[in-house]
Amino acid sequence: MATRDHPAAVDADAVVIGAGPAGLWAAFELGLQTLAVHVVDSLPHAGGQCAELYPDKPIYDIPGVPVCTGQELAHHLLQQLQPLQVPLHLGQTVAELHADRTGQGEGWRLHTAQGMTLRCRALVIAAGVGAFVPRPLAVPGLEAWQDQQVFYTDPPPDVWLDRHVVVVGPGEAAVRLALHTAAHGAARVTLLHRTDRFTIDPALDDELQAAIGAARVHLCLGQPVAVLSDPDGRLLALEVATARDERLSLPVDVLLPRLGLHPRLGPIAEWGLAMERKHLVVEPSTLQTSTPGIYAVGDVAHYPGKRKLILCGFHEATLAAWAIAERLRPGQRIPLEYTTTSPRLRALLGADAP
Amino acid sequence: MATRDHPAAVDADAVVIGAGPAGLWAAFELGLQTLAVHVVDSLPHAGGQCAELYPDKPIYDIPGVPVCTGQELAHHLLQQLQPLQVPLHLGQTVAELHADRTGQGEGWRLHTAQGMTLRCRALVIAAGVGAFVPRPLAVPGLEAWQDQQVFYTDPPPDVWLDRHVVVVGPGEAAVRLALHTAAHGAARVTLLHRTDRFTIDPALDDELQAAIGAARVHLCLGQPVAVLSDPDGRLLALEVATARDERLSLPVDVLLPRLGLHPRLGPIAEWGLAMERKHLVVEPSTLQTSTPGIYAVGDVAHYPGKRKLILCGFHEATLAAWAIAERLRPGQRIPLEYTTTSPRLRALLGADAP
Repeated sequence: MATRDHPAAVDADAVVIGAGPAGLWAAFELGLQTLAVHVVDSLPHAGGQCAELYPDKPIYDIPGVPVCTGQELAHHLLQQLQPLQVPLHLGQTVAELHADRTGQGEGWRLHTAQGMTLRCRALVIAAGVGAFVPRPLAVPGLEAWQDQQVFYTDPPPDVWLDRHVVVVGPGEAAVRLALHTAAHGAARVTLLHRTDRFTIDPALDDELQAAIGAARVHLCLGQPVAVLSDPDGRLLALEVATARDERLSLPVDVLLPRLGLHPRLGPIAEWGLAMERKHLVVEPSTLQTSTPGIYAVGDVAHYPGKRKLILCGFHEATLAAWAIAERLRPGQRIPLEYTTTSPRLRALLGADAP
Repeated sequence: MATRDHPAAVDADAVVIGAGPAGLWAAFELGLQTLAVHVVDSLPHAGGQCAELYPDKPIYDIPGVPVCTGQELAHHLLQQLQPLQVPLHLGQTVAELHADRTGQGEGWRLHTAQGMTLRCRALVIAAGVGAFVPRPLAVPGLEAWQDQQVFYTDPPPDVWLDRHVVVVGPGEAAVRLALHTAAHGAARVTLLHRTDRFTIDPALDDELQAAIGAARVHLCLGQPVAVLSDPDGRLLALEVATARDERLSLPVDVLLPRLGLHPRLGPIAEWGLAMERKHLVVEPSTLQTSTPGIYAVGDVAHYPGKRKLILCGFHEATLAAWAIAERLRPGQRIPLEYTTTSPRLRALLGADAP
């Protein structure tokens, strides 16, 4: 699979937002139409919800696959896509969409939060329930310090050097970050969580207990409810409600919430596309949204009779790919070909390779 | 798989006509809705077109299955259907459909050419390009003697006893039938074919050559172009055009064309359902035809944007099953459940069985 090192800008016939099952299948069908297609996804791996939310749980309703896990499904789809050499740009969260009429004909320009630009003539939104982004710590007013003293992705080490670090979270990401900052120059590290039980494996728990025993990591049991700041607007401390309903003030220079990921439709909801209850309204025969050239497939799409099932996403992705081929090749008849019998498709898929 | 010995009559919530991929998937989804579903198909095995026309050829566009043959796909779908215990009635060609208002509420009564009756409250037509029926021998007027002197399915032995038998065909079915009738009492057996090459394996070819050498089977090379009958309307002979463009008269008492199977939409086209170019017009959100309670999915169905792909048939079958569940359980909300997480579905599928 051609997973590229994120060039600054790419030009494509079509871009697919989302590398879940529907997005990967859209890429496959666009590839069969010999359109140059790129895929972007905010997660560092392909597979979308089913690989993120239930990687190891069995799925029974993929037709022709009596049982597979989410991870296996993603693996098989990537394997199926492999001959078509579709670039996947992972860890790229789409932030902005602009109409692009500067080039040859109408098109779109996408920018990611990570600084990548993609230009395309057709866009397929296969964003599922949204991009998986860090779950925010729900403390009123906290967003004011984001990327100053509050970091949802790991900051460079000089940010925490000789500082009071507070890591918040229940799992491996929080515990590992607490141990890491403690071992690399933080003045004091506090791990804040509702209980003293973490969802981590025994080996990591041993490490954590040793660090707590040696006072390298301090444990604070409770929930942050408010922030305390100084007159210059600097975050000074978190007010924490303990399990015994006491309040305590926890000094903080650097706050690192690690509460897992949750899906957010994010900027897509602000692109002016017709929506119904957080879903993009599409025309079911083409999967086109209210904006010509922009299509939506999978869980993010809505049309009469829509069911949020993976197998329906495959169908929608296929119809969208056909509609895009017809749009980008006006006046040209797009024949129905079968992978079983079409020499063109068989060659594309490397079916006759030795 | 519960392949029953064709009871005379069955009562079902839903009947699916066609055991190809779309029909099998409709049965799966109807089964998940805990509706009593039966499947009928004219072929003696499940799998439909893809198992009949390209059993051993690879298919590359079943999502999540990088490559499989038609036979493997049918096998996987049957395996997936297995826990739901759906009866498949194979070798049953649907001949008649009647509205059935005698029972509780509105429904349908189906009769097969083989004498079976199925009553149901909803019908799914997943007939593909039609039922696979014997390809007729194209000789003007021949149909007048069908089931009298011309038989497309094997007649009882007394029909050919001491008679002049002519078997027509290029393959195993024709050759085996010629050998069989010759060995079991026919007065004279002629095998009629354009050339002396048959698409049979070497062992059977050896048998044939031995029978020809011993004058148990006579070979006639040519094409039948007309029939000769006596004043009482009895078929007497076939007029045969030879490769050297001569005409000869081939006496015949019993004519057994064995030219393979071809798909025929057959009686379905006469049920008064709205059609467009030999396809059933459906509403894409429910896959319902112009007649309430009758649905069509897969290659036989037509709606705007329709593509005749197996993966689209899976989606259509799913939406039809939902629409049927809603129709048969009015006023009841049909929740969207996932096989990965729903205890009800997992129990149905035997997912937690030891």
